[in-house]
This record gives sequence, structure tokens and C-alpha cells, in this order.
Amino acid sequence: MNCLFSCLGLIVGLVPNLVFASPSAPVRNYGLVIHGGAGVISRSELTPEREAEYRARLAEALDAGYAVLDRGGPALEAVIAAVNILEDSPLFNAGKGSVLNADGICELDASVMEGRTLGAGAVAGVHHIKNPVNLARDVMEHSGHVMLIGEGAEQFARTRGYEMIPADYFQTEHRRQQLLKAKELEKVKATKSALLQPEETYLLRQFKWGTVGCVALDRAGDLAAGTSTGGMTNKKFGRIGDTPVVGAGTYANNATCAVSATGWGEFFIRTSVAHDISAQMEYAGRTVTEAARATLAKVGTLGGDGGVIVLDARGNVAMEFNSPGMYRGHRFVGQSRYVAIYPDAPKP
Amino acid sequence: MNCLFSCLGLIVGLVPNLVFASPSAPVRNYGLVIHGGAGVISRSELTPEREAEYRARLAEALDAGYAVLDRGGPALEAVIAAVNILEDSPLFNAGKGSVLNADGICELDASVMEGRTLGAGAVAGVHHIKNPVNLARDVMEHSGHVMLIGEGAEQFARTRGYEMIPADYFQTEHRRQQLLKAKELEKVKATKSALLQPEETYLLRQFKWGTVGCVALDRAGDLAAGTSTGGMTNKKFGRIGDTPVVGAGTYANNATCAVSATGWGEFFIRTSVAHDISAQMEYAGRTVTEAARATLAKVGTLGGDGGVIVLDARGNVAMEFNSPGMYRGHRFVGQSRYVAIYPDAPKP
Repeated sequence: MNCLFSCLGLIVGLVPNLVFASPSAPVRNYGLVIHGGAGVISRSELTPEREAEYRARLAEALDAGYAVLDRGGPALEAVIAAVNILEDSPLFNAGKGSVLNADGICELDASVMEGRTLGAGAVAGVHHIKNPVNLARDVMEHSGHVMLIGEGAEQFARTRGYEMIPADYFQTEHRRQQLLKAKELEKVKATKSALLQPEETYLLRQFKWGTVGCVALDRAGDLAAGTSTGGMTNKKFGRIGDTPVVGAGTYANNATCAVSATGWGEFFIRTSVAHDISAQMEYAGRTVTEAARATLAKVGTLGGDGGVIVLDARGNVAMEFNSPGMYRGHRFVGQSRYVAIYPDAPKP
Repeated sequence: MNCLFSCLGLIVGLVPNLVFASPSAPVRNYGLVIHGGAGVISRSELTPEREAEYRARLAEALDAGYAVLDRGGPALEAVIAAVNILEDSPLFNAGKGSVLNADGICELDASVMEGRTLGAGAVAGVHHIKNPVNLARDVMEHSGHVMLIGEGAEQFARTRGYEMIPADYFQTEHRRQQLLKAKELEKVKATKSALLQPEETYLLRQFKWGTVGCVALDRAGDLAAGTSTGGMTNKKFGRIGDTPVVGAGTYANNATCAVSATGWGEFFIRTSVAHDISAQMEYAGRTVTEAARATLAKVGTLGGDGGVIVLDARGNVAMEFNSPGMYRGHRFVGQSRYVAIYPDAPKP
């Protein structure tokens, strides 16, 4: 299968705009899908200027990942390139611009997985790593382990030559204000419990999301996935969500699909979201869209929400969410770049 | 379905030795399955006296969990009771008697999951919690989160009134010797890499395993699972394995099964072992045994090994492993207690 895709990859590399009509041939030969978080994205808060900033950064991330694939680079490399752009932008809840925990510190999680080898790497609760997704990859490739947490993960980073970034690099005024609001709301919630106003419920939900991620398919037919986050505003007690949990926030298997998730992490862990999508394709023969919808419906039944991006080895894409919006986009060979935020965005 | 089981539970409670012949009725109405770790268990090292100690402790754990179920207690309560016996025994790699990390400290992980609610809780990298599986349950029931790591998890424990146990409570001379051996072997490995003697390879593999776990089915027809571990001897960098990863080391869903895993954690995370077994039952209609074998075969293909215990809501049990042995056993209403270690043990 890989061999077949590799051969097709070579041919398509020479004739990049060739369109395959046969259903067994790849629909899209190589490309990537990204998300910048799902959640309560309100049209009133997102001014046209701000929306343009988001769109520009998503486009930049797509182009960075696409460039890797276009020159024949591996899917994981493309994932890293795209996620790094989103981590480095203060707009998204990952790397710089991450939300603050209850102690006012950014506490970062990330994971990656490769579809060909089923290799995976993850870090959770790091404070001084500029691009946690890169460290997750180094965990996969150089630690002999899959998941490293806290200061131990940073000790490992030092052995790999990582610079320890001061905590204030990650913090933005916007996130400081969000933490203050979250702490106020926590007091309100503690006193009147179930009697929250709709606006308060809205805010509480808003504090739960935001993650960035990418899934990619390279010319060799290999899939990869990666996800990076600052987690949940005002989080306490070393809480981690689904992002660094392989099988929940991230999964990749050439035989099925690559998945990156974003949403209310607790529900995504309990549903093993990323692996559940892969398992439906493996055991029930479902498509990326059928599988993504069925898994999100389970999350919804439990009371959670969020979204997923899914890509299979033939280039079929699902970008599903049961939240009011999801920053998302894709770019594939021979097709124009697609970027969207709201559910009613025109289809690609 | 639960309601049906509840009614049957009441009837069977009154007539405990009743055996159901119909395939749609529960085979075993309530009971539990435990493991005390899979791995390289050698008949030459395990003297008859030592083997008797292991068997006695496994039997004690089975009886403790069974007593909870027999008096109508919930499955999760039985899981906690059984796992606590194994955590408190210095024989097993969980709680007291856990292996030492590279710094000579016991670093503990645990998780639990309930099949009815799909509620889950996990802690990773705690140093001062006598029974980590209890804290995992408190995370599920009282934190609003699923996974807490490191010092944060211990801060949460303090808010729940946990006593902080001195680090030396967990340590045993046997584990100190194992750490010394592992460190020696690490030096050998660093100098001659692939040229390890069979005995060295044997030791290296031995350092990777050992975990305790339980899956239970209560009179109400609810499933639960729990797993607890000290992880891997000489582990570094805040490494965590599959035990605290919901979907890898632990999963429970009344619609499918409850699973607790033990083995080389990295491979178990990459295969999402516990959820993969559940998914095969959900999407491919496989039995507990078919699903457990297929998932362990995937682990084996990647180069890993270990074992799983699986229990469905009709009381069907799988205790599968692809390692030389697994401490294991079960006790069900109307049946005698079963305890085994080696693959050639008589079937129950």
C-alpha cells in the first residue's frame, strides 16, 4: 500500500495537477489540515481586523506545512512546521499566547504520532519550552519513551540542547485578563452554583478550549498528526487535558487516518476521541466523516464539545465540530488553500 | 440493559449458585478479575515459598474485592478494595514495593474508570500517596478533571485530606538492588549497544513491567476498571507509561467491557490497548478473548509485550498475555477462586 502510494507519489510529483478519477487512487496526493482550536467563537467579539489576523496566521501555517510536503518532506516534518507557526503566534492557545493556569503560569502540553511506524511522543506540564510539539517529537525519536511530564520532560529537553525560555515569553495581556475573569467567575460559581447567567456559562465554556493541531499526508503516502496546547484557563493541580494523551488528542495510523482534536479535554479523554475515530475506520469500515461525527456525538452525549480534524491516506478530510466555531483550514496539491472559522463557511 | 441486569442481580442475589444456561443471560452475575503484573517471571527465581506469598496476596485481593460485590457494593468500590491490597503489599510494583526511578524515588501512577458513566480519573508522577488508585478515584469524583500530574496532583490530594507519606515508605531493599542492577546494565548497554548477552536482555525486559489492576462487575451490571503502578525501574525524565493513560492502561464501558493492562507501557500507549479492545467489541462484535488477543498481537508486532484482563457485562473473562507469565486471578459468584502465574496453569 505504502509502496503503491510512493510510486503514485513519484508520478504525481512530476505531474502535480493530475486529477485521479478512480475511487481506489488517492483523491488528493499530499497536503495537510490544521486547526487553531474549537470553541465559543463569537462573531461580535471577533472584529473583521482580528478575523483577518487569524486567517492570515492559519494561511501561513498551511503554507509552511505545504512547503515541506511539496519538496518531498515527511508528513511529521510538515506537522511540526505548521504547528510551530501557530505556537509562535500569540493568537492561539499554544506556545506563546497560551492561557494561564491558576498560578498565572503557562503550562504546556503537546503530542505527535507517525502513521507508518505508530511512533508517538508527548510532553505534559512544561513551562519553558518554546515549541512543545518539537519536544514531543524528540521524546518519540530520542527518549525511548512516549510520554514525559513536568520538570523531567524539561531535563530531557536540556539533554537535547533546548533553550529554557523564561515563563513571561508565553504570557500575553489578553490571557492575563482572561485569568482574572475566570477567577472572578469561579467565586461567583462557588457562591451561586447552578444559578449562572447565560453570559457566565458562556465564559466558563470559553475558558475550556483552544488548542492547535495538524494532520498531514506526504508524497510517500505516510500520515502524521500533532497537537499543542496551553490547556484550560485557571487550571489547577497539574491538570492535563486530551492534547498530550495519545489516543485522545492525537492519533495516526497509515491503515486508517491521522487525527488531531481540540475541545473540552476531559470528555475527549473519556471517549478516547482520536483512537475511536481510527477504530471505526479499522473495525466498521466507516469514512473519516462518518467516524468523526459518530465520535463527536458520543462526546456530546456526555456533555462535552469541541472538534477534530481527520485525514486518511487517500486524502479524504473531515473537519467536524459540535462547538460554535473552529479555526481550521487545509491545503492540498492542485487545490487552492481553504481557511474557515464558523460552521456556515462555504465548503471547499 | 442495566435495568435487566439489576433485576437479574436481585434474583441471583437470592439464589447465588444458580447457573444460567441461556447465552443471553449473564454467565457470571458478579465478580472480579485481577492482575499483579505481566513479565519475565522465571520459575527458577520464584521459589515455592515466594510463589505461595504471591498466591496468598492475590487471593486476599480477590476476597477483598469480592466481599464488596457480594454485599451489593459498586464495581468501582471492589476495584479499589482489591487494588489497595496489592498496592500495600511489597511484592508488587505499585504503592509499597514500587520500583525506583533513576533518582532512587518511587514515582507512582494510577487510573480508574466506571463503565456506566464513562467517568475516569488518573494521577501520574506522585511521590507521597499511599494508594494512588484512591486518588485517581477522587480526581474522577471531585476535581472536575480526569488527569492530574506531579505536585499538582499531590496539592489536590491535600485538599481531599490525604496524608503525605514519606518517600521511604514505598522503598524496599529488593527494588534498591534492582535499581543498582539496572544502572550497571545501562552502562554496559551504553558501551556495547546491540551486543547484549541473553541474560542482560532478560534483565532489561524485566525492568519494564509490573503493575497491578482489577476489573469488576457488580450486581447492578456495572463494570469498572483500575490500574496502579510504580512504572519502570531506573525511569528518567518524568516518564509515564500506559497505567495513568485512560484508553491505554485502563478503560471501562458497560456497553463493551472493562480492561486493565500491564506491560511495556510505551507500546501499550501507541496501541491504545484498553480502548482498542473495547472498540473491537463495539464495532466488530468480537468477544473479550478475540479482542484481547488481536490487540496484544498488534503490541507484539511493534515489539512490545505484556498482558490484559478483560471482563464484559455478562461476566465473560479474558486474561491474555504474550509475556512469559502474568500474576492473575478471578472470583465470581458460585465459582471457586482462581489464581495463576504461568501460561500453562490449569484453566479455571
